[in-house]
Formats: sequence, C-alpha cells, structure tokens
Amino acid sequence: MTRNLKLIIEYDGSRYHGWQRQKEDRSIQGEIEKALETITASSVTLIGSGRTDAGVHARGQVANFKCDTRLEPETMVNALNSLLEEDIVILACEPVAESFHARYDAKSKVYHYRILNRPVPAAIGRQYSWFIRKPLNQDAMQTAIAHLIGSHDFKTFEGSGSTRQQTTRYIFAAKLTEQDSGLLIFQIEADGFLRYMVRSIVGTLVDVGLGKITPADFKHILDSRDRSRAGVTAPARGLILVKVNYDKPPQK
Amino acid sequence: MTRNLKLIIEYDGSRYHGWQRQKEDRSIQGEIEKALETITASSVTLIGSGRTDAGVHARGQVANFKCDTRLEPETMVNALNSLLEEDIVILACEPVAESFHARYDAKSKVYHYRILNRPVPAAIGRQYSWFIRKPLNQDAMQTAIAHLIGSHDFKTFEGSGSTRQQTTRYIFAAKLTEQDSGLLIFQIEADGFLRYMVRSIVGTLVDVGLGKITPADFKHILDSRDRSRAGVTAPARGLILVKVNYDKPPQK
Repeated sequence: MTRNLKLIIEYDGSRYHGWQRQKEDRSIQGEIEKALETITASSVTLIGSGRTDAGVHARGQVANFKCDTRLEPETMVNALNSLLEEDIVILACEPVAESFHARYDAKSKVYHYRILNRPVPAAIGRQYSWFIRKPLNQDAMQTAIAHLIGSHDFKTFEGSGSTRQQTTRYIFAAKLTEQDSGLLIFQIEADGFLRYMVRSIVGTLVDVGLGKITPADFKHILDSRDRSRAGVTAPARGLILVKVNYDKPPQK
Repeated sequence: MTRNLKLIIEYDGSRYHGWQRQKEDRSIQGEIEKALETITASSVTLIGSGRTDAGVHARGQVANFKCDTRLEPETMVNALNSLLEEDIVILACEPVAESFHARYDAKSKVYHYRILNRPVPAAIGRQYSWFIRKPLNQDAMQTAIAHLIGSHDFKTFEGSGSTRQQTTRYIFAAKLTEQDSGLLIFQIEADGFLRYMVRSIVGTLVDVGLGKITPADFKHILDSRDRSRAGVTAPARGLILVKVNYDKPPQK
C-alpha cells in the first residue's frame, strides 16, 4: 500500500551543508533519505517545503515522501530517530492525502533570526545567534521592519547569482521582540522567501540598529531592487525555520 | 602593582574535562590560565569557586587571580575573550580586595538542571538538557523536592569514592519550574555541594516523577545516608552552575 507521509523535522544545521541532498557533503535531506531507505528497504525521495542553506536550523521543517509501508507513523518516528544522529529529530509523522506536496502546497513560512546584543558573547547557545556587541536601536529597527509588511519586490535582498524571475513576495508579519538578556528575535512570515532573503534583510536591519542608515534609507534600499545596496548577509547560525503553514494566513 | 581580579565566566562544558586543570586533558581552568599567562607574560593561578565536572556548563562561575597588571578590567575581558575559544566567555572582570578568595568566600551556589520531558528529543539545544521521554509527575517531584530544604546530611547523594568527612549541607531553596515545550528546570541553592550531588538528586527525583518511588521514599533515601539507594546520576549535559553568591542568603 503506497502512502504519502508528512514529516515535521527539527534540526541543528551547524554540521550540515544545508537541507538539499549533495553528492559529497552531508545534508539534512540526504541523512533522512538514507535512514528512510534503511527502514523501508526501498529508494525514497523526500520532498522538503524548501531548502535551508548550510548552517541554518529548523524547528518545524516539513517534508513528505511516498512509500510502500505498513509501519505506524509513531513507529516511523522512533525508527527514524534511532537511526539519525542527535542533531536531526523527527518531531512527528502523519499520513496525508496522496496529492499533498510539501513544497507546492506551502502557503507561508515563519523564520526567526536570533541576535545576541550585549557587551560580551555567549558560550551557551552561541550556535543559535549572531553576536552584535554595539547596542542596537530597537525602535529604529521596528520602524524599518514596518516597511516590509505586504507585497514587495525583494530583489534587493536576494542572494547574488540567482536567476529567479519572480522576486515579489508577500510578508504577512514581521517584528522584533526582546527575550531575556539581550536576545533579540526577528520574526518574519511570508508566502515564500528568496535565497538569503532573511539574512540579507537582517544584515540591513542591523545597519539601521547601529545608526549607519535610517529607517527611511531602509525603505529606499528595499525599493531600489539593487542588491549592492543591501547590508551584509547575516550569519547562517542565527536563522531558524520555525514553521511551514499549509493554510493561508490572513493578509493585513 | 599586584591586583586581585575577580572573573565571572560562562562556559559550554561539552568539550572539556571539567573546570579543574589536568595534565593531559583540556579543562576550563587550564584554558583560562593559559590565556592569562599569554596576556600577563607571567605564571598565573586561577582560583575557582569550586570544580564543575566534565561536561557540566556554567553561566556564572566565579574565579580570582593575583597578578601584576596595569590592564583595565574591560581590556582584560576583551583580551581573554579574543584568546579563548568561543565556548568559554569571560562575562566580567573587577578588582577586588586582596583578601577575596573565590572558593573560601563563597556563601552559596545556584545550579539549574534542565530536563526535556516530551515524546521526542530536541535537536536545537540538545547539549543543555537531559531528555526523558515518559511523562514526569511534576507534583510528586515538587513534594519530594520540599524535603531537601534546610540542613541535611547528603551522603546518599555523594559520588562514590569520596572521602569527604563533612557531608552536611544547607539548602536555601529548591524548586521545579516548567518552561516552554516540556522543558523542566530544577533549581537548587545551597551553601555547598558534594560531588555529583545535584545530578544524583535529579536522577532520584526522576524516579519519583516516573512513579518508581514515592516522595516519601525519596525522603527515606535522603535520610538513609546510603549511596546505593540513590537513583542514577543524571547526565552532565543538563547541569549549569548559574550563580555564586558571596553574600549569605537568608535561611528559611
């Protein structure tokens, strides 16, 4: 009996060359496919909701695969977790409609970018944030962030070398919150993201926070569709794919 | 001019054989002393508030050292952090009275032990908690924890092989709290801790949480002064030395 199974996956991307299967390097997709092939004794293709780049983490990546199996979903979770190394964890598995496609059916994704803004770096949890020593002006950053909401052409914030034609994305929500001891979380939900988009936005937002540019400059940079005007691409270690939604969120 | 300098130190103990300097293995004390000797061009002995075992973490370890230096404390912090690997961070440095001794003057220490209690393990932050799959009865654990408060002989919860004569310690506070998504934090403050004491208490508390023993059994085990009756020693990775106090907390 061929079933379509959906997985929810958490991973610490530190040791991997991103989601996508690679010939030589270790990838999240590659490791999970290898485990699935061991369990099912057949060739399996795992369809992710989208790629994450080398070093990027996930708390809620979604993927699906079709396979002849009689294993109960809970047994599949335990079998996968016992084969995978401890930096990749299958959180859940459920049978879904045959037509379900983790990438095509995704309506929105939520990313968090973590910035540690205090005088000294952290040792504990350093793998999951970008350390910025100088104080960031959070109010200025919030003002800049407000310019992101809604539909925009994000060509400015796309990684160079991309040949993607359609660079307009709809941002459902974006905000900056402060957790304990200088830990800032930039949260963004969109119907899709261009390559390096969140990290490029964050690099430019940090320029706003440092006073190098104003929130109005940020808007001009976004509107310019000119990659060379964006700030640095923030390091991968601060970025976490938190959730993939398959129901469309309300537009504001 | 000889100064007595106090350091506050955060570390991720995963890669180290504990606080104390060792001939062969990497230790936190050894790494910091090496950095201090590079900076001051002299031999330095760092006095820690106490040892932490291999794999145990700290957010607020305290140490002091005496040294001829004209460096400003802030410069010392930056110099040390630039020499140390990123899993050891000097949070602060301040000149203290010549008589200050990080170990002898410590009045209490606060430890946190983190338990992740949910059906599946975590990938992100797995280095800082003990994963327990079966649901823990937190109420029963709280009842057991109440028996810890005050002065007790903790011989039951001391690591085997110790020859320490005085095994009575005063517990100022102990409680269990739940943070997000099944993360339980056991917090304990005492005037001192025996070797493996927190981890041995936690291993026995987990037996209470799993219903293997009752809170009353826990009290009998504590009172028995019999090491063989304690539960397993909980893994080092969940333990964090959070704070060392040099003012005596109020007794209850």
